[in-house]
Amino acid sequence: MDPKKVSVLVTGGAGYIGSHAVVKLLENGNMVVVIDNLSNCYKAEDQSMPESLLRAQEISGKKLKFLSVDLLNLTALESVFKSYHFDCVMHFAALKAVGESCQRPLQYYRNNVVGTLNLLDVMNKSGCYSLIYSSSATVYGDPTSLPLVEGSPTGSVTNPYGGTKHTTEMIMSNLCASDDRWKIVSLRYFNPVGAHESGLMGEDPNGIPNNLMPYIAQVAVGKLKELSIYGNDYNTRDGTGVRDYIHIQDLADGHVKALGKIFEKNFNGYNVYNLGTGQGHTVLEMIKAFEEASGKVIPYKIVQRRSGDVAECYCNCKLANHELQWKAKKSLKDMCEDMWRWQQMNPNGYSGIDNNQSSFADKAKNVYVKKGGKIYSSGIDSNNSFLEE
Amino acid sequence: MDPKKVSVLVTGGAGYIGSHAVVKLLENGNMVVVIDNLSNCYKAEDQSMPESLLRAQEISGKKLKFLSVDLLNLTALESVFKSYHFDCVMHFAALKAVGESCQRPLQYYRNNVVGTLNLLDVMNKSGCYSLIYSSSATVYGDPTSLPLVEGSPTGSVTNPYGGTKHTTEMIMSNLCASDDRWKIVSLRYFNPVGAHESGLMGEDPNGIPNNLMPYIAQVAVGKLKELSIYGNDYNTRDGTGVRDYIHIQDLADGHVKALGKIFEKNFNGYNVYNLGTGQGHTVLEMIKAFEEASGKVIPYKIVQRRSGDVAECYCNCKLANHELQWKAKKSLKDMCEDMWRWQQMNPNGYSGIDNNQSSFADKAKNVYVKKGGKIYSSGIDSNNSFLEE
Repeated sequence: MDPKKVSVLVTGGAGYIGSHAVVKLLENGNMVVVIDNLSNCYKAEDQSMPESLLRAQEISGKKLKFLSVDLLNLTALESVFKSYHFDCVMHFAALKAVGESCQRPLQYYRNNVVGTLNLLDVMNKSGCYSLIYSSSATVYGDPTSLPLVEGSPTGSVTNPYGGTKHTTEMIMSNLCASDDRWKIVSLRYFNPVGAHESGLMGEDPNGIPNNLMPYIAQVAVGKLKELSIYGNDYNTRDGTGVRDYIHIQDLADGHVKALGKIFEKNFNGYNVYNLGTGQGHTVLEMIKAFEEASGKVIPYKIVQRRSGDVAECYCNCKLANHELQWKAKKSLKDMCEDMWRWQQMNPNGYSGIDNNQSSFADKAKNVYVKKGGKIYSSGIDSNNSFLEE
Repeated sequence: MDPKKVSVLVTGGAGYIGSHAVVKLLENGNMVVVIDNLSNCYKAEDQSMPESLLRAQEISGKKLKFLSVDLLNLTALESVFKSYHFDCVMHFAALKAVGESCQRPLQYYRNNVVGTLNLLDVMNKSGCYSLIYSSSATVYGDPTSLPLVEGSPTGSVTNPYGGTKHTTEMIMSNLCASDDRWKIVSLRYFNPVGAHESGLMGEDPNGIPNNLMPYIAQVAVGKLKELSIYGNDYNTRDGTGVRDYIHIQDLADGHVKALGKIFEKNFNGYNVYNLGTGQGHTVLEMIKAFEEASGKVIPYKIVQRRSGDVAECYCNCKLANHELQWKAKKSLKDMCEDMWRWQQMNPNGYSGIDNNQSSFADKAKNVYVKKGGKIYSSGIDSNNSFLEE
């Protein structure tokens, strides 16, 4: 089967990573249905779909189908699979805030694990056995040795969010071992940052960002006063934590490569790939890079370590390089510049509240188009009849 | 609170381990409500409760309340908590066959993990924060060093059943960390065998037994032809696998001790105890002991190793000895003799099909009573008004 012609269900497709993957899928020619419970994305009442997906259509010039469905609603999920035929599912839907997961473990396990069980059960019943899964470097817990390879020990996770990712991986691995019709690719993300180069799509955290880079960006744009660095006494080159940051566009590209792989002849079973750059950067290095990209000074203070944080985490991604023919291409400079463009164009994220956003966005679109980028503000290609119910 | 006066909900209380714990609780003076989905126990249509629980009442001379409820039915579970007040829950309900779990991982995760999440959610809503949990030595996977202590690594489990036990332990540990009202004791069982000394209660496997000792017992009684030993080339004293067998009555007693512990002042959080004897026995040693107890020869053949089996598994149980003031008292001889009595009196388990069971059972009851045991065939003490709805 030509991977460009497969129909894909994307769960959680309105979120940060999912929406960028949706653009790549649409650009790849795939027919895309997105389900999302809207728990972590902006959708105005008069909009047919979340703003992130409207922009995904705008950037790609292609249409997608959006359905507001929660994976915990088994009946609704079954009805999606009755209405459409899917060759493959990309499963992004999950709660993902480490701190919140420590406060509300039952909610995290129910949402992430039960949601995934529902999805797998319905796929099983529908005869759809191909899945690309959003896993995370968090399954490795506190690394016993670096760089992390796919065979590094997993399971000693340091927080409930990590527990849900580890559990869902176990379920999928067990499922593939029990039934060889299943083809599952688990992509273990390192630290996704950056935004679409158009400035139209990026990360839009609810409230105060949990992750470093969106926080830095909000300090740079003046929304937050200063950054807190959680510990500068780690055993790293400058004492701050080291992570393997990967551009969201490289990450999204990895999903399209995985889709190609899954439809190769003789591919089956449970397969895991690290998606990272293989390069670690400290918090202070990230601040410096962002200051250079934005021309802003990022004030920061050192505070206590956060429980559950590890000193260093970066991967060996040769398996993905080799088997998926995928490699992260974007630089740290790209990550910061793209993030800064998104942040400036959308200081309040997708909602655009209290902000003369449209004129700025229009100006930036023009810049993007002049550089050779395409924006399909009107005249979206509607030549995908599969979407008509 | 006096642990003898607490009311206890027992999930899966009609099963092998649950029913023996129920007897101990009734003898301890506790008010007991049992829920069970009847998936792994015998109940005749005209009986008010499973046969195992009728016998638990008979042995203890106390009444319990039985409700046919599946933990996956959240509404039914909520209604149980609305009808009764519980001070503590003992949670035995789970699917437990390792081989079957490899065939049906989704069913195992749904039943064991989602069932447990439902229970914890409903307990949370009802303000019942005390739980004693049926965990298993399986969470240790293939031991990296022996004997196993509670701090030994967990998570590298070797089958989906073990995955469900590991996951539910993680959930409970995370839950206790998030909310200090919770008091949870996880009891990691080694290999429960044996039966109630009356011969009235014991293990009643569905179909062909999955575990060694019930299999041996069925060979001894003539129901099965010969035993298959899965590998005699392990690095053990006679080449066959070593396990830490514990008498079901000792195990049940551990639960009552845990109940006492949970209601001690200042006890809280997530607490794990190994329940075993600390002694490992090989398959060949178990056969010999059973032959001595039964006077029967157990024919066996050596077959290939089973995937997922470990060479040796036995525990250090000093933590339970010390903190729960609990110690396994029964010998290997007791385990085999009690098991043989149960098997002879109930060659077809609780259903008693095709078998002149009652007269034999009556004879054995007389023997038990003459030895000083009590049987309350009539005149069950109904002085527990909490059971009246």
